[in-house]
Amino acid sequence: MKTLPNFLVERVRLTPNRVAVVKPNDEQCTFKELYDDVFQHAGRLSAIGISKGSHVAVLMSNSYEMIVTVHALHLIGAVIILMNTRLSQQEWEYQLEDSDTSYLLTNLRSDRFKNVKVYSFEELQTVTPNSFDIQKTVRSEDVATMMYTSGTTGAPKAVIQTYGNHWSSAIASMLNLGFKEDDAWLICLPMFHVGGLSTLYKSAIYGMKVVLVEKAEAQSIAKAVQTHQVTILSVVSKVLTDLVTLYTRKEYTHSLRCVLIGGGPAPLPLLKNSMEIKLPVYQTYGMTETCSQIVTLAPEYMLSKVGSAGTALYTCELKVLNQDKMASPNEIGEIVVKGPNVSKGYYKRESSSFNDGWLYTGDMGYVDEDGFLFVVDRRSDLIISGGENIYPAEIEEVLVAHKNVLEVGVTGKDDVKWGKVPVAFVVLHKNTTVSKEELQQFCKEKLASYKVPKEIYFVESLPRNAANKLLRRKLLELQPGEEK
Amino acid sequence: MKTLPNFLVERVRLTPNRVAVVKPNDEQCTFKELYDDVFQHAGRLSAIGISKGSHVAVLMSNSYEMIVTVHALHLIGAVIILMNTRLSQQEWEYQLEDSDTSYLLTNLRSDRFKNVKVYSFEELQTVTPNSFDIQKTVRSEDVATMMYTSGTTGAPKAVIQTYGNHWSSAIASMLNLGFKEDDAWLICLPMFHVGGLSTLYKSAIYGMKVVLVEKAEAQSIAKAVQTHQVTILSVVSKVLTDLVTLYTRKEYTHSLRCVLIGGGPAPLPLLKNSMEIKLPVYQTYGMTETCSQIVTLAPEYMLSKVGSAGTALYTCELKVLNQDKMASPNEIGEIVVKGPNVSKGYYKRESSSFNDGWLYTGDMGYVDEDGFLFVVDRRSDLIISGGENIYPAEIEEVLVAHKNVLEVGVTGKDDVKWGKVPVAFVVLHKNTTVSKEELQQFCKEKLASYKVPKEIYFVESLPRNAANKLLRRKLLELQPGEEK
Ligand SMILES: Nc1ncnc2c1ncn2[C@@H]1O[C@H](COP(=O)(O)O)[C@@H](O)[C@H]1O
Ligand SMILES: Nc1ncnc2c1ncn2[C@@H]1O[C@H](COP(=O)(O)O)[C@@H](O)[C@H]1O
Ligand SMILES: [Ca+2]
Ligand SMILES: [Ca+2]
Repeated sequence: MKTLPNFLVERVRLTPNRVAVVKPNDEQCTFKELYDDVFQHAGRLSAIGISKGSHVAVLMSNSYEMIVTVHALHLIGAVIILMNTRLSQQEWEYQLEDSDTSYLLTNLRSDRFKNVKVYSFEELQTVTPNSFDIQKTVRSEDVATMMYTSGTTGAPKAVIQTYGNHWSSAIASMLNLGFKEDDAWLICLPMFHVGGLSTLYKSAIYGMKVVLVEKAEAQSIAKAVQTHQVTILSVVSKVLTDLVTLYTRKEYTHSLRCVLIGGGPAPLPLLKNSMEIKLPVYQTYGMTETCSQIVTLAPEYMLSKVGSAGTALYTCELKVLNQDKMASPNEIGEIVVKGPNVSKGYYKRESSSFNDGWLYTGDMGYVDEDGFLFVVDRRSDLIISGGENIYPAEIEEVLVAHKNVLEVGVTGKDDVKWGKVPVAFVVLHKNTTVSKEELQQFCKEKLASYKVPKEIYFVESLPRNAANKLLRRKLLELQPGEEK
Repeated sequence: MKTLPNFLVERVRLTPNRVAVVKPNDEQCTFKELYDDVFQHAGRLSAIGISKGSHVAVLMSNSYEMIVTVHALHLIGAVIILMNTRLSQQEWEYQLEDSDTSYLLTNLRSDRFKNVKVYSFEELQTVTPNSFDIQKTVRSEDVATMMYTSGTTGAPKAVIQTYGNHWSSAIASMLNLGFKEDDAWLICLPMFHVGGLSTLYKSAIYGMKVVLVEKAEAQSIAKAVQTHQVTILSVVSKVLTDLVTLYTRKEYTHSLRCVLIGGGPAPLPLLKNSMEIKLPVYQTYGMTETCSQIVTLAPEYMLSKVGSAGTALYTCELKVLNQDKMASPNEIGEIVVKGPNVSKGYYKRESSSFNDGWLYTGDMGYVDEDGFLFVVDRRSDLIISGGENIYPAEIEEVLVAHKNVLEVGVTGKDDVKWGKVPVAFVVLHKNTTVSKEELQQFCKEKLASYKVPKEIYFVESLPRNAANKLLRRKLLELQPGEEK
């Protein structure tokens, strides 16, 4: 049994006066000040009944309040369910139910939920704090957080992330990127995703300043980078594209030593443009199940291996399997990974993705002669739209429930702004009609708006293989004016 | 069961082309080149019969050959017994026997040992390498190394150091000092002590250049610092004193961002002189049992807490006990520590120093209001002479075996050059005489020369307490011309 200290408690013991957070309004707070707020807030959460082991959902957008909430829950020893703020009511309710959650902490409207006790950050300010047992140490295998992700089958499932997973992820990243006392990491990825959340843990573990921004947009980011001498940044490709434009126009100067691009494929021209203006971009590969990056390009290979996601981090392993056999160099197969940052599995669900310590990612790629990974295809059928994952099966499930719809296939279509957007191909029941707008409205009631198909095509039949399995990759050929 | 990768194998996978070692002759080698040498050498060690679990003693002075030997033994999975090159034949033989060692690798004369197979680095060059199983992963709790240390009772005992201990030590240090790709750590502490050896592991784990010097003397060090842009240095106070003199005379410039001073008390004037010439000195406290530092001053407290050894590193704990009770701030008591870098105990020996995960160090100190440790007294009676530990009981045991000696007390006396030197107070059997020189010669045959008492005083009786226990602290009062 390995124990770990509470990340924040340990940090505040060592360097209480270092800056912990720069808030969106440019106000700074030290680790000691952060801890004081966290301790107070934990007392209030304890007063409303939250205790060690409670399942507590957090539905908040990036903010100092969210940081305080997350650390406060860890101080009590609650299990945190991070919920995506962009989902639909119905999706949230599914996650609350599935994760056996009893409390929901949110800074959105709070009167809409049943079966859970809902509190906003503001109303908690009026609660008198209780005394509680500070969880100064945790076991490495204790569950810290859960986040929902969908597989190809559609039903979202909660990825279990332990304290040991988060710790190992922070250490492995540090062994790749190093750490200097004057590093500052800007958080523009949502903290309800692991890419954003993991930076919060790194901040406490390293003693590192994090910088929050009002909006995850290039302009706000470039401004904050300049004002607060940001050195590290994790972004999705859409934001990077806009940033490169700003820096090319020389509107801002920057102190960045590392821009991590992950969460989806990074277009080669973007990587090259970035490098031309000396923006030190590192491609990285990871997923919710690996608690953020597991494969990242080491600094010295930025130029010679452009386009590669890199090698497995220190303590992590990577292999490519083709039909259950180790692929040769440059041979494409499924990416399979292992490491102390890899989740043990899904909450209350068996999954063949986890096997003997290895995670079968469903992503396709190859490793070159020098051991560098190139991701060639995303997890089967996954649509990544502006950094958010969309699983076709989820949308199909909703649409097929409409009384006039017989069958449906969803896939991603290229989009200048979002990378991909979902589009649906619908076969209606004989002698029925329904408008595109009506089906979109039908989706809107059940799905996050970014998941609502941007186009709906009515077709005669769907492409299927011999086993009658839907061939989503062939759907786009059904668009009016496309060649079969 | 937690596994760890072989530190070097993992590093060479990631950054094979970074410089790993700068040899004393200024030649550089990369991690890949180092690994090639290590792999070859491991093949030879395998050919002479060394295999996983073999107990192999290494009796070498700092050199590239020693680095290759240590890594090669880890590649095979042998347990390494690091032996101090300055000991006597008899002391070495005791350690070889006590540690159940079957192989001795040395670059000293090799014909003097019985019961172990002895090989010099040179003669191994002629051996044809065998194939062997590379230990790519180890269990965290596997024994990596053992080193001898003595307690107040005199019998040297082997401290067990696991892979997990070494790993945790490297990580905890990194979380304090940070790491930049261009860091270079100069090794001038002997690698048969944990202070030197631990830097070797850090090199592999961080991907960091280490710089070796021909001689652990200020001039060679200052020269190497300047030539190779060394950023981190661990030293004992004698070397630091000389370094400060050189830098005050402006004979050299330096790139140092951190000078760790440990292994013994750091005189306050020395710390202040260092700071005056902007040498960034950090006091640190640790011992063989904690696999190097466990308490170190964080960068930001260098000035405000000068003289303090700092706070327990991230993941480590520290408390001061006075009569089994937690001491109040500023109250002196025994220093008791805990952490993943702390040894599980001694080889084949029970010890009350290890209790419930805590190590009772025997050192005395206090913690101020802000939690900073001040070491006020060394492990009961320990004499530290030029960075080497001398245990009075060891010398007493030797002297009392002389036919004319009735009883003896040994203690440390201040010395300008070495900090302390051992001196002995001897009570002879009635009606016998023996010269100081004869007793020193008698010691020389059995003890490392730095342990031979510099002075021997013949006295009537020794100071003892009511329980008849020797009061070593009162010995110096017996010197001719001293006040009682
Ligand atoms: N560097 C990358 N290249 C291509 N796809 C990526 C990359 N990094 C992440 N992804 C995709 O994003 C998925 C993880 O999504 P998530 O769990 O939301 O972080 C992975 O399984 C991949 O399909
Ligand atoms: N900062 C320090 N101040 C005083 N004594 C120290 C300090 N660091 C180490 N020591 C002494 O050195 C011992 C460890 O010796 P060793 O096992 O050879 O490293 C400790 O138990 C202390 O007695
Ligand atoms: Ca994503
Ligand atoms: Ca020492």
